Amino acid sequence: MLVRGAPAIGCTAAYSLVLAVRQALAESGPQGDWFTLLQQSAGELNEARPTAVNLRWAIERMLRVAANVSAGDCTADRVEQILLDEAFAIHREDIAANLAMGQAGAALLSSDAGVLTHCNAGSLATGGYGTALGVIKSAWANQQISRVFADETRPWLQGSRLTAWELVRGGIPVDLIGEGAAGALLRTGKVDTVITGADRVAANGDVANKIGTYSLAVLARHHGVRFMVVAPTSTIDADAADGAAIPIENRSADEVLSVLGRPIAAPGAGAWNPVFDVTPAALVDWLVTEKGVLEQPTTASLSALLKT
Amino acid sequence: MLVRGAPAIGCTAAYSLVLAVRQALAESGPQGDWFTLLQQSAGELNEARPTAVNLRWAIERMLRVAANVSAGDCTADRVEQILLDEAFAIHREDIAANLAMGQAGAALLSSDAGVLTHCNAGSLATGGYGTALGVIKSAWANQQISRVFADETRPWLQGSRLTAWELVRGGIPVDLIGEGAAGALLRTGKVDTVITGADRVAANGDVANKIGTYSLAVLARHHGVRFMVVAPTSTIDADAADGAAIPIENRSADEVLSVLGRPIAAPGAGAWNPVFDVTPAALVDWLVTEKGVLEQPTTASLSALLKT
Repeated sequence: MLVRGAPAIGCTAAYSLVLAVRQALAESGPQGDWFTLLQQSAGELNEARPTAVNLRWAIERMLRVAANVSAGDCTADRVEQILLDEAFAIHREDIAANLAMGQAGAALLSSDAGVLTHCNAGSLATGGYGTALGVIKSAWANQQISRVFADETRPWLQGSRLTAWELVRGGIPVDLIGEGAAGALLRTGKVDTVITGADRVAANGDVANKIGTYSLAVLARHHGVRFMVVAPTSTIDADAADGAAIPIENRSADEVLSVLGRPIAAPGAGAWNPVFDVTPAALVDWLVTEKGVLEQPTTASLSALLKT
Repeated sequence: MLVRGAPAIGCTAAYSLVLAVRQALAESGPQGDWFTLLQQSAGELNEARPTAVNLRWAIERMLRVAANVSAGDCTADRVEQILLDEAFAIHREDIAANLAMGQAGAALLSSDAGVLTHCNAGSLATGGYGTALGVIKSAWANQQISRVFADETRPWLQGSRLTAWELVRGGIPVDLIGEGAAGALLRTGKVDTVITGADRVAANGDVANKIGTYSLAVLARHHGVRFMVVAPTSTIDADAADGAAIPIENRSADEVLSVLGRPIAAPGAGAWNPVFDVTPAALVDWLVTEKGVLEQPTTASLSALLKT
């Protein structure tokens, strides 16, 4: 949990494999079977977190490059440099995608938008700039934003600790809310769009994201508030037919029973702590990617987008 | 905030006026204008919390008794005793109402009920036993409960600190959830009834209760989960035509920006912190009172109930 946020996990995995190939090359030498050693490291890395598909996506992309190199006759330095270049490319492309999505998402907002975001999908969750927060930053720069609310996002408080920090640092005023307050907030009319990131988008447009996202999507639909998901295509898993195919990470009850390491609950209480949930595509008004925006994504429209 | 929970606030107000009348009698003597002094104290007490109507209800009931006594020719001890008897009656009636509602609510549950409750509406919120938790305790004693979930209930964590404590103490296993997780939980089918208390019920059945209740009511309706509100008739405010007439207490942003006094949010962030919300009567499947159960309460059915 030192790195969180699907795109940031992808970028970190890419750089991690550069370190892994360095170690593998030191063990086997450039003519030895370093690729098999790298595959083993990649397998271990892939087990670190189950839900964010960017992890698998980045690992597979790095392994494809490594497989090509291993067929050649490169020095150890050259192998490492090629993989580092690929990691830089993944990182650079993520930032470029974020900037593109920021503009594309902002273009969908009104000229006086009240927005609510969940968890942290900003610079601290990506290669830089952010997905959901990228849209908010772009719209703020365009003077389109009247008010930003952020869920505090229990149990890890990413909203209070990270999103609020990024927004304050960017000079964007933000009001935090306890997650239970979302319904009452949407009922006031202060918010016209809920904007979140994603950890994995299934082929049909179902969205796995931080626990609490699904509640917001239901509440948004009930109040006629638009629900926008912002995610690069590296977050789309064409192999997962729908949300039921996405593995959801369950974490320790202690995370709910404490705050920042301090116990808050009566001794003897248990907790239910899946850390992601799945929002059905039918509740997603906009899926914003770097390749374009889908209104109410479907298997057909997502498949067409991935082919562009 | 040393006393919270609408019925407990009512009972405490009644006992407080016994202390107030003792002081008033000491100042004015039993032949003096102690009643005016008592009215002044009652006015101050009534300002303590705006939302829970049990406060006003208990104060008015105590003042009616005091007005009758003041017309007579009682000793100071006798005045105090009469008011203490009335406070005892309020307290005793609240416990009796809780026990009656516990049985009436349990009778509505299935024989294998999964329930979710919010905030604390148990012994610690009432004269004893509890409203929402009273139903859960009764149903548990009847072996009707398969599983109890409780919202942790930010910002004061009444769920984690109080409800979990009461349930564990009663030998009833409980799993806490962060409030954002409610949607995902209801989607699993593990919960068939959401049960909450109320701070004030308007004449049309709209329910003011701890912030987060309205979100749960919307989520329950979306998932076909029943939404039960358990409240004694002392919580019904016939003078409030609907929820819009109920004053909602806003509290300090610091409550959201900290947990148990410890800052958790990035410096510079604001917060939106109304501590109650209003659930429209249309989302209330059952209003359980000590005088009977209303299915989908209306102004007509509530008015008829109050006349019984």
